[in-house]
Amino acid sequence: MAEVTARTVGESRATVARLTVPSDANVMGSVFGGVILDEVDRTAYITATRHCRRNCVTASFDRVDFLGPVHLGELLTFQSELTYVGRSSMEIWVRVHAEDLLSGDTRPVGNAFVTMVAVDKSGRPIPVPPLTLKTPQERERFAAGQTRMEDRRKARQTVSRRTTRSR
Amino acid sequence: MAEVTARTVGESRATVARLTVPSDANVMGSVFGGVILDEVDRTAYITATRHCRRNCVTASFDRVDFLGPVHLGELLTFQSELTYVGRSSMEIWVRVHAEDLLSGDTRPVGNAFVTMVAVDKSGRPIPVPPLTLKTPQERERFAAGQTRMEDRRKARQTVSRRTTRSR
Amino acid sequence: MAEVTARTVGESRATVARLTVPSDANVMGSVFGGVILDEVDRTAYITATRHCRRNCVTASFDRVDFLGPVHLGELLTFQSELTYVGRSSMEIWVRVHAEDLLSGDTRPVGNAFVTMVAVDKSGRPIPVPPLTLKTPQERERFAAGQTRMEDRRKARQTVSRRTTRSR
Amino acid sequence: MAEVTARTVGESRATVARLTVPSDANVMGSVFGGVILDEVDRTAYITATRHCRRNCVTASFDRVDFLGPVHLGELLTFQSELTYVGRSSMEIWVRVHAEDLLSGDTRPVGNAFVTMVAVDKSGRPIPVPPLTLKTPQERERFAAGQTRMEDRRKARQTVSRRTTRSR
Amino acid sequence: MAEVTARTVGESRATVARLTVPSDANVMGSVFGGVILDEVDRTAYITATRHCRRNCVTASFDRVDFLGPVHLGELLTFQSELTYVGRSSMEIWVRVHAEDLLSGDTRPVGNAFVTMVAVDKSGRPIPVPPLTLKTPQERERFAAGQTRMEDRRKARQTVSRRTTRSR
Amino acid sequence: MAEVTARTVGESRATVARLTVPSDANVMGSVFGGVILDEVDRTAYITATRHCRRNCVTASFDRVDFLGPVHLGELLTFQSELTYVGRSSMEIWVRVHAEDLLSGDTRPVGNAFVTMVAVDKSGRPIPVPPLTLKTPQERERFAAGQTRMEDRRKARQTVSRRTTRSR
Repeated sequence: MAEVTARTVGESRATVARLTVPSDANVMGSVFGGVILDEVDRTAYITATRHCRRNCVTASFDRVDFLGPVHLGELLTFQSELTYVGRSSMEIWVRVHAEDLLSGDTRPVGNAFVTMVAVDKSGRPIPVPPLTLKTPQERERFAAGQTRMEDRRKARQTVSRRTTRSR
Repeated sequence: MAEVTARTVGESRATVARLTVPSDANVMGSVFGGVILDEVDRTAYITATRHCRRNCVTASFDRVDFLGPVHLGELLTFQSELTYVGRSSMEIWVRVHAEDLLSGDTRPVGNAFVTMVAVDKSGRPIPVPPLTLKTPQERERFAAGQTRMEDRRKARQTVSRRTTRSR
Repeated sequence: MAEVTARTVGESRATVARLTVPSDANVMGSVFGGVILDEVDRTAYITATRHCRRNCVTASFDRVDFLGPVHLGELLTFQSELTYVGRSSMEIWVRVHAEDLLSGDTRPVGNAFVTMVAVDKSGRPIPVPPLTLKTPQERERFAAGQTRMEDRRKARQTVSRRTTRSR
Repeated sequence: MAEVTARTVGESRATVARLTVPSDANVMGSVFGGVILDEVDRTAYITATRHCRRNCVTASFDRVDFLGPVHLGELLTFQSELTYVGRSSMEIWVRVHAEDLLSGDTRPVGNAFVTMVAVDKSGRPIPVPPLTLKTPQERERFAAGQTRMEDRRKARQTVSRRTTRSR
Repeated sequence: MAEVTARTVGESRATVARLTVPSDANVMGSVFGGVILDEVDRTAYITATRHCRRNCVTASFDRVDFLGPVHLGELLTFQSELTYVGRSSMEIWVRVHAEDLLSGDTRPVGNAFVTMVAVDKSGRPIPVPPLTLKTPQERERFAAGQTRMEDRRKARQTVSRRTTRSR
Repeated sequence: MAEVTARTVGESRATVARLTVPSDANVMGSVFGGVILDEVDRTAYITATRHCRRNCVTASFDRVDFLGPVHLGELLTFQSELTYVGRSSMEIWVRVHAEDLLSGDTRPVGNAFVTMVAVDKSGRPIPVPPLTLKTPQERERFAAGQTRMEDRRKARQTVSRRTTRSR
């Protein structure tokens, strides 16, 4: 099938830069973590859609640690690429950096692993093209992604048990 | 000190309802997961700030599973409450529901555990009031929160090792 | 008919909390009264739509007095409930409070009576379910709502006469 | 005092045209009444600030009747002018029209009387310049505005009594 | 044909006033030039659509000089009118002024010539009504517009040659 | 002086990707040209600020031709780089592409030359670092930029004469 021709990691890579504006921050000038996750998700959506050329929906966000505060007026940069591709799900790795435009200081803000699923019009999962791995690094990341996918399945069960117990 | 008078779970509980609008969704009408996390974070910020009456910043988001897609025009409801409080960090549990306003069908979308930290003007962590636990359920949740806080510390170390290895 | 089964006041009650952001305020940091009325209307829409599960449009806003200024960064809370239901129109009472998140001070900002009408696809009014009144207070409010509905009809005529005269 | 030199009605008149966009409407494409009131308030703010050149806050909105629905994509036009000026309060009359840009059909949507108050930095009312009336129509409107200001004072008392009774 | 009845310059003239809000400006409080061009384009769209009552798309913006910075909180006013009309393209002249609402100082910010084209549903250019010129000034502007339209055609060729050479 | 150390073209290059959302388009789904120019300006601002690390304001936009319509839901990509640097002004070249995420078709939308000026706190122009040119292409573009800067000066005079004449 033409649609499932394998694609490389480079073909769906995306970069989004965004100047933070006042409505992104609380009254103290600290940018909301959720505003950053919103843009992480939109960047991951670009990468996932570029890979499969279908409608994609977010299935999960792995744990995200914010390495430090972001201040109003800084430039946020989001770089996303595919690390792992299953039958209809894709793992997208998004790294976030903040740049103080006046000083030039740039620092990592955090990074996220987003799982997206390609869906048809009635919302059912559909197959996505396989991922062509070109470098040893890409292969290593794919293996790590596969492990995380397993961890996710287990965590989902553990969390669901713990949640049931604790609520 | 007056500021560190213990507060109950109920004193900082918050509910936010939000009608989804077109800019929240992709061109297929599926609401972005990141838009939901943005509102989760703002709701958690209300609860955290109500508890400590200080500026709060997001330290981390635990893994979030989206239980199903949300469609444009639906009403999202966010309910947040404190589950665990440490020295300067707070764990806020936010549950999200979607309601189809025309049919009345309401379903869970997912839930998140957000860690927030109270900070002073230079961004350094400051102590927050202790949490008064009133019901057995609150005590159980507090214990589960403490376990998750430990899990987070370990995961942070594991992820940081794995990340170093795989990049 | 199934659609016109009476519903209680509690079934359509809604609460919306909203952090004010810089674009809600003028350059002096005073939140625009119109921003508050915008959210009042959206909250009333949730209550009206929950009651009748049809498309609803705003027919009128009763006079609103703002009891004092709201400052940028404060949390606004909107609580809405049905007070009176006619054949196709509904009166929704929305109370607004402002909370200074850092001090905890909470004060009333004002309250509004919004009249909404359920309409079909061509915009014609359609019947809505009756309102089941459960407490003496709900019955009192319903009677007061009926009086206001009468006052509105008269005021509409007076205003229309006065307007014609004065323009 | 130079600041209290009387100004004419024409000097503070304002016109605002605004293309409605998707986030202004509900999922059926009906523009929210509150979105219209938001723009009414911002237009009134322009007129009030032009008259007194001080910070102005909204004190009240008189009853607003929406004469019919507004559909997504239509152009809304807001025309505002001063009708009455007291010591520190101003009554601004805002007329709203909707224009279907493709057919050219234009119709009145409603009109509002907004009361604004000039305030100093600590929020206390301050005097505003008197209004110079030039035409018989302006004088008639001023008299009608004075009557409405009286009506407002009485209504405020009646509402406050009725509210106390009915809650 | 009824649709091509000539229309006057006055019939499509438009005025848009807009209060600048924090998300319009960089962190220094200077309003982005692009925000002004966004509103210039929307105002030109109103004028073009009012003239032809069809969907219009922007073909080009002539060079725009910003005569000075605009500060957050100022009121921007956009006045647009048709200067020249070809077969399916229209030239719209938009003048921009900034007003400091507290001092009353008003100054020109710049002016733009926007070319818009009427298109059918598949995006193909369609004829627009001719422009009725009533005053010597309108006739002079029409002639100047015709010259600019010629200049544009030549410039397009020059730029395209220079671009090819320089990239 | 440390601040005026020359910088290369590569050091200030920027890429911004942006998913178009409904409020970017008119009711026919055509993205406003002005929305594109708004993002062009913000991308140019990133490049200019990265080069000089000072506050920058937009002085002018050269003529922009839109090569074809952009439809709602498409991804816009903006790539900016410095072409010419004078004493306190910088010319930034921004290329815009649209990508249909579902088909993968990508096409040029247009390109713009934006002139920005570095300013101090009182808005007076201040010197910017020189531009280090590394490739023959960069030198060719610099020369072309210098020519355009001359053309701008002449055009400004011509336009100002013509404008005076035609109004």
